[in-house]
Amino acid sequence: MKTDRIILGIDPGTTIMGYGLVHDHGPAIELIALGVIKLEKMQDHLMRLQRIFERTLYLIDEYKPDEMAIEAPFYGKNVQSMLKLGRAQGVAMAAALYRSVPISEYSPRKIKQAITGKGSATKEQVASLLTVLLSIRETPQYLDATDGLAAAVCHYLQKNPGSSGGKYKSWKSFISDNPERITG
Amino acid sequence: MKTDRIILGIDPGTTIMGYGLVHDHGPAIELIALGVIKLEKMQDHLMRLQRIFERTLYLIDEYKPDEMAIEAPFYGKNVQSMLKLGRAQGVAMAAALYRSVPISEYSPRKIKQAITGKGSATKEQVASLLTVLLSIRETPQYLDATDGLAAAVCHYLQKNPGSSGGKYKSWKSFISDNPERITG
Repeated sequence: MKTDRIILGIDPGTTIMGYGLVHDHGPAIELIALGVIKLEKMQDHLMRLQRIFERTLYLIDEYKPDEMAIEAPFYGKNVQSMLKLGRAQGVAMAAALYRSVPISEYSPRKIKQAITGKGSATKEQVASLLTVLLSIRETPQYLDATDGLAAAVCHYLQKNPGSSGGKYKSWKSFISDNPERITG
Repeated sequence: MKTDRIILGIDPGTTIMGYGLVHDHGPAIELIALGVIKLEKMQDHLMRLQRIFERTLYLIDEYKPDEMAIEAPFYGKNVQSMLKLGRAQGVAMAAALYRSVPISEYSPRKIKQAITGKGSATKEQVASLLTVLLSIRETPQYLDATDGLAAAVCHYLQKNPGSSGGKYKSWKSFISDNPERITG
């Protein structure tokens, strides 16, 4: 399959938003950017939402992704936290919808399953595999950044189920060659 | 108090969004526009969100409101419906945040209390009072439209507590002159 697309993955939260951008060449993907948008110092809920919207719109205008993948939990502790999470998701999605970037949603479990083969994997295990796969030199300071990146890689794997980013024969062989990264 | 501002009131929901625009002249307000954005025919959740964002942005660019008031329930039946409601609120808020229009949030109870003097008033009672106050000739087809308008009028009353839109000596006298509209 001939492919050439940029995928923006995001993990919007109310205190921090992680994002990752990958270039999908078909059999291979490479990391373009990885980062977090910190919100915890902003007391005002509306200012947080404004920052999420503006920064997501900036990422879209700067990197011109063809598709957006979002980590979207469908359940939570209580209705108030879900309302706030929904708002954070909503403003980030608004930026993509405004620029007509198609959005795909994935549950945290689905993302973990796609990347590690285990829906119950920890954030650290997901981050560890992504670090090797995408040749990220250091473990990112914030695991939330790799959560955003993980959404992008999960989206990539939906259309390239047999692929592994080009460095391994297949994703399964990549996982089996790195058992220490998913056990424990 | 000398005032000259336009207030956009919205009631974002997942199947319909009501909106109302009023011109606040200080002691008096007048209706500018009233309407609904229908979403129930759109099956796709993302298309609904896109429509809410685009239509809210259109209202802001068309009428250039100085402030936005939003009806925002803080609790609901379950976490999934609150996530969806949060998203609908989020995309509508994103349009205002993008254009730097300040947002004020009011609970349904607060809005009912401000307009009818009763936090437990029905939608019909709120609509009925607004119809008289703002000289709306017919009861709007959709009560959701008056819910959006009610948010705008509630916001107006926060800064003009003694006012009544100019047609009555005070809001209290307006209410007491129209008892049939709030009882029952």
